[in-house]
Amino acid sequence: MPKIVRFYETGGAEVLKIEELPLVEPGVNEVRLKVEAIGLNRAEVMFRQGHYLENPVFPSRLGYEAAGIIDAIGPGTTGLQIGDRVSTIPSFSIGTYGVYGESAVVPAYAVAHYPENLSPVEGTAIWMQYLTAFGALIEFGHLQRDDTVLITAASSSVGLAAIQIVKSVGATAIAITRGADKKSFLMGAGADHVVVTNEQDLVESVMSLTAGKGVNMVFDPVAGPLLGELAGASAPGATIFEYGALSAEPTTFPLFAALAKGLTVRGYTLFEIVKNAESLARGKQFIYSGLKTGELKPIIDRTFPLESIVEAHKYMESNQQQGKIVVKV
Amino acid sequence: MPKIVRFYETGGAEVLKIEELPLVEPGVNEVRLKVEAIGLNRAEVMFRQGHYLENPVFPSRLGYEAAGIIDAIGPGTTGLQIGDRVSTIPSFSIGTYGVYGESAVVPAYAVAHYPENLSPVEGTAIWMQYLTAFGALIEFGHLQRDDTVLITAASSSVGLAAIQIVKSVGATAIAITRGADKKSFLMGAGADHVVVTNEQDLVESVMSLTAGKGVNMVFDPVAGPLLGELAGASAPGATIFEYGALSAEPTTFPLFAALAKGLTVRGYTLFEIVKNAESLARGKQFIYSGLKTGELKPIIDRTFPLESIVEAHKYMESNQQQGKIVVKV
Repeated sequence: MPKIVRFYETGGAEVLKIEELPLVEPGVNEVRLKVEAIGLNRAEVMFRQGHYLENPVFPSRLGYEAAGIIDAIGPGTTGLQIGDRVSTIPSFSIGTYGVYGESAVVPAYAVAHYPENLSPVEGTAIWMQYLTAFGALIEFGHLQRDDTVLITAASSSVGLAAIQIVKSVGATAIAITRGADKKSFLMGAGADHVVVTNEQDLVESVMSLTAGKGVNMVFDPVAGPLLGELAGASAPGATIFEYGALSAEPTTFPLFAALAKGLTVRGYTLFEIVKNAESLARGKQFIYSGLKTGELKPIIDRTFPLESIVEAHKYMESNQQQGKIVVKV
Repeated sequence: MPKIVRFYETGGAEVLKIEELPLVEPGVNEVRLKVEAIGLNRAEVMFRQGHYLENPVFPSRLGYEAAGIIDAIGPGTTGLQIGDRVSTIPSFSIGTYGVYGESAVVPAYAVAHYPENLSPVEGTAIWMQYLTAFGALIEFGHLQRDDTVLITAASSSVGLAAIQIVKSVGATAIAITRGADKKSFLMGAGADHVVVTNEQDLVESVMSLTAGKGVNMVFDPVAGPLLGELAGASAPGATIFEYGALSAEPTTFPLFAALAKGLTVRGYTLFEIVKNAESLARGKQFIYSGLKTGELKPIIDRTFPLESIVEAHKYMESNQQQGKIVVKV
């Protein structure tokens, strides 16, 4: 029987349990994957803690991203075959369809072939990060080459994906990180500038880097008090995308800066893209194209075996990672 | 010598003083108006209190809107003649060029002819209210006829202008007011629905009126804790325009609603329109056209003589008004 990760209560990483459960047959419009690699996301940590947009129903599975080989196909599914190498696009319930484990049943619409030159570890590090950044920067933000984009939590997989996307359109990326230890990594990952907030004032530094203009776009999963600084670093007419809630503190709307500069603060999640067939098609095309040219290339921080899923979650929470954390199955 | 309103310190309405001051000659690209009517705006109350985007330099004039007859033209001015009936478009410093008084010098670019069938009292009740609402709803919001718009502070001149603009494009207007006393007035002013927040739950009422969908657009000058309710009453993908800061309380960004629904919160002021020649031209055209068809028609609440400027400001602060407060000079 396949090993499956489930949890019975919200809490620390230790609540994750590996259990042997019967193989499940895919239902109508579903497929089953023999999982080869699992991409970890902050969303799963928040879901495990009970702080996510969706709440677990116990015992709950979890997980949005897996790469694997289709080993069973449910009724009604077209365009996919047993033996296909695919990875999952997070467009389903993280609890009902959680992919952490050796086997996962997912909706057929939520799998996509990934380029043959990528390994399963890379294949599971594509959709969440690139589609999330694509949706904000390209689909809604209409990023242009003379734009400057501020990227917070820049060492996260989505942050790095955003840097690559900004550079792929020829725009300027300013990465924000707390500690100096990640600065050279971020420069190597393509950032034009890195601001280290433990050492530098965010607003002053960004204004200095932009000749007093500020940035045209912000891509931020933190929110909380940081939003005020992001508004301070923004140019007139800028758009601030908020795509997460990592801060535990309340988020004050920067009203006077927003009025004075005509700022837009836009709540955004990947679901706006994956639930819209046209947006998703544009996103997939953009990403396939970028992977082919090499302008987009998943950065893998570290892999863990499935047995170490608790350690993998703890590692994500330590914020040491520089890129995607992947579990090899 | 003309009577001019100035103030020497921020504070209550009583700080406004009427003084006789020498007639001023217009400078380069300026014109002088013999003022016939002054349109009062909340901005002037906030400027007087020291709570506006711009701070007074004492002794300070104040005022954005006047209708009058050009009685002097400065060097460099073209397209305007002595004797022209014009009113001012608020696109200048409220302090440097304040129009409260019998005479006002303003930049030539900031005056526009108003339709001949309007009185000076109506002519001074056009630009601030209609351009403000036009900019958010039409220029940036791209309002469509199947949209539903929530309008707070609906009995204010800008709120009423927004109702008229919403109706002129065939969309649905839900007006929000605190007390039941203004309900019938707002229905008469064109609102499709009125929600009285002293008696009704805002979110529940709006959801009920929209068959559970919520509104596509919000036009709000209040901010503060109200923003959370406005987000609750919004449909997925809605845009909330914040165009003022009437609430004295902090404004919390409704992060989880924004993430879940993909909401946009957009700080906005009229200056984005009046500082952009193309936007301003589109706005003027839209307003001239609406005034001509009668779809736009200024609603005047009450007029005061210039001697009663203090009472006029107190009246505005009492929030009893239903439309524009105008001072006849």
